[in-house]
Amino acid sequence: MKLYEMKIAPNPRRVRIFLAEKGIAVETVEVDLAKGEHMSEAFKAKNPMRKVPVLELDDGTCISETMAICRYFEELQPDPPLMGETPLEKAQIEMWQRQMEFYFMLPTGMCFQHTSGYFSAIRKTFPEWGERNREDVEKFFHYLNRHFAENTYVAGEKFTVADITALCALDFSKVNNVRIQPEQEHLARWYEAVNSRPSAKA
Amino acid sequence: MKLYEMKIAPNPRRVRIFLAEKGIAVETVEVDLAKGEHMSEAFKAKNPMRKVPVLELDDGTCISETMAICRYFEELQPDPPLMGETPLEKAQIEMWQRQMEFYFMLPTGMCFQHTSGYFSAIRKTFPEWGERNREDVEKFFHYLNRHFAENTYVAGEKFTVADITALCALDFSKVNNVRIQPEQEHLARWYEAVNSRPSAKA
Repeated sequence: MKLYEMKIAPNPRRVRIFLAEKGIAVETVEVDLAKGEHMSEAFKAKNPMRKVPVLELDDGTCISETMAICRYFEELQPDPPLMGETPLEKAQIEMWQRQMEFYFMLPTGMCFQHTSGYFSAIRKTFPEWGERNREDVEKFFHYLNRHFAENTYVAGEKFTVADITALCALDFSKVNNVRIQPEQEHLARWYEAVNSRPSAKA
Repeated sequence: MKLYEMKIAPNPRRVRIFLAEKGIAVETVEVDLAKGEHMSEAFKAKNPMRKVPVLELDDGTCISETMAICRYFEELQPDPPLMGETPLEKAQIEMWQRQMEFYFMLPTGMCFQHTSGYFSAIRKTFPEWGERNREDVEKFFHYLNRHFAENTYVAGEKFTVADITALCALDFSKVNNVRIQPEQEHLARWYEAVNSRPSAKA
């Protein structure tokens, strides 16, 4: 089994942290997006969307999409549970995970893509749209701060995959110069808690 | 149990089709976004993101996010399976579902939000960004057509939740005037197959 990834990219990091929490070791293969290695026909055959991460099984079957890869390992090795155990827990954790994905990771990525210049040689960017996304992420930090005033972790009292998405989105947002503000003490408390877990270094 | 939704919106439709495939009946409550009913404090308490659908359980617990609601019902009543049975199937169906969501439903929504004028009174729109998304969706139709030349359904030989997302995205894309082209015969074959299931009318 091999995990095609890129060390500095936020989505592969989600998988690495997930695996570290589970105590699962997987061989990794670095794909350098800056050098266009994801544009090769060989990589396109693994994921037509040309994105990392991709998990390749020993028979050549490829699974792309961060959360699909996490789901695979959760089903293979449910312990420790990161996606819930009961129907209600599974639904609630998926709800929170998606909230972190659609309202935090996604606009952070949009801001980076459209304001950093990193992708401007490849495709036309829309800087004003990127700025809008930056504002949305800044507002989301306030929302998260209020959330963590009443909740230990994203989905409540247990560390879950939703915390992994939020942690990776928060660290990613630093490239957009969006940071925890001095008055966001609850968000800072949560960040310190999840960022000091050994898995955060994965 | 109550499902807060909006009949004409694409995401609530995904849940209705999912429930119809499972043979589960749930009371629905219409939330009129055009009248701003999702902006009330009462609705915000159900979903701080102010989006439909939201599933409210009898004890008042609320689950938002389309796929989280579907997950809840899949776990409560696995038959017929729409999200896979083995770890590999579950991962692959999640992969395909997310591909339909991120590369089809999401840009379709972006195009609608930024080019239709439907939301321009509420928030500044970026029409050029909307047009880029229209082009991406048009390209995705070609990709899907090639995919269906070799696959009966989105995730292979079985109808799954990934087909539900794709069907709702395809019908939604009509508002952007993106339609199946005459030469896209494989996509047309798939559409006819999924759109003629009784659940498509849910």
